[in-house]
Amino acid sequence: MGQTIDIRHTGDDERWMRAALDEARRAMEADEIPIGAVIVAGGRIIGRGHNLTETLSDVTAHAEMQAITAAASTLGGKYMPDATLYVTVEPCPMCAGAIGWSQIRRVVYGASDEKRGYSRIMSRSPFHPKCTVTSGVLAEECASLMRSFFASKR
Amino acid sequence: MGQTIDIRHTGDDERWMRAALDEARRAMEADEIPIGAVIVAGGRIIGRGHNLTETLSDVTAHAEMQAITAAASTLGGKYMPDATLYVTVEPCPMCAGAIGWSQIRRVVYGASDEKRGYSRIMSRSPFHPKCTVTSGVLAEECASLMRSFFASKR
Repeated sequence: MGQTIDIRHTGDDERWMRAALDEARRAMEADEIPIGAVIVAGGRIIGRGHNLTETLSDVTAHAEMQAITAAASTLGGKYMPDATLYVTVEPCPMCAGAIGWSQIRRVVYGASDEKRGYSRIMSRSPFHPKCTVTSGVLAEECASLMRSFFASKR
Repeated sequence: MGQTIDIRHTGDDERWMRAALDEARRAMEADEIPIGAVIVAGGRIIGRGHNLTETLSDVTAHAEMQAITAAASTLGGKYMPDATLYVTVEPCPMCAGAIGWSQIRRVVYGASDEKRGYSRIMSRSPFHPKCTVTSGVLAEECASLMRSFFASKR
């Protein structure tokens, strides 16, 4: 991966990550793997989503995909170069590809995904060339939600 | 990429690729980049799709994504380990990721995509470990449709 992943972030980042965590909790309540996402532009949320793969019986129904579709609907256009996507867990390759197509310019995620994360499987960044990536925002809270979910399944 | 891409195929493969080409032509008629896909299981088509990113203003509306969602709906389940996906052009990383999640066991594509294809950006196969890949089926017909579309835009 040729892209730098930054760990510096701001209080605003934590604020929006809390909104993504709220989405993740909604997934948890629906007995779905608890991952949530929000897309922010101009200081407001333009799209939200949480994982709904079980409910919709559809592998494409990840949090980020739903948030991208919702944000495109809000904007009335499919490209969002002024937007930042916040997601509680590192995107998978599918979602990373969608983020790339959408031209989102900043991606902020919480917990890393050592097994399924895009950064383990992609040889170069799937994002827009100008996109920056920040990781580790409220990582412990994001990861803890995932651990609770999987512990409840054992 | 650790995965072998085969170029041997059968008459049945051409038959289903023609169905994918029909989908691609539907995209063309809608002034969309002409890519089509079908998913086949048990000798019949269980999902179809064509690129609708402009019509839906949604970057996630690729042919393969629509076909996967449609096939999951037909099957009443999100995994399709007995299915083969036929697509006129090599999948992008987003679609390749979705194909991986769906557990589809065979991918057959027509034209390669030197710029946006998954095989250029992924360091290992995004598909199920048992998934086989065949490329080059009716490749010239698939590529020619793409060339006609882009020539009409110049």
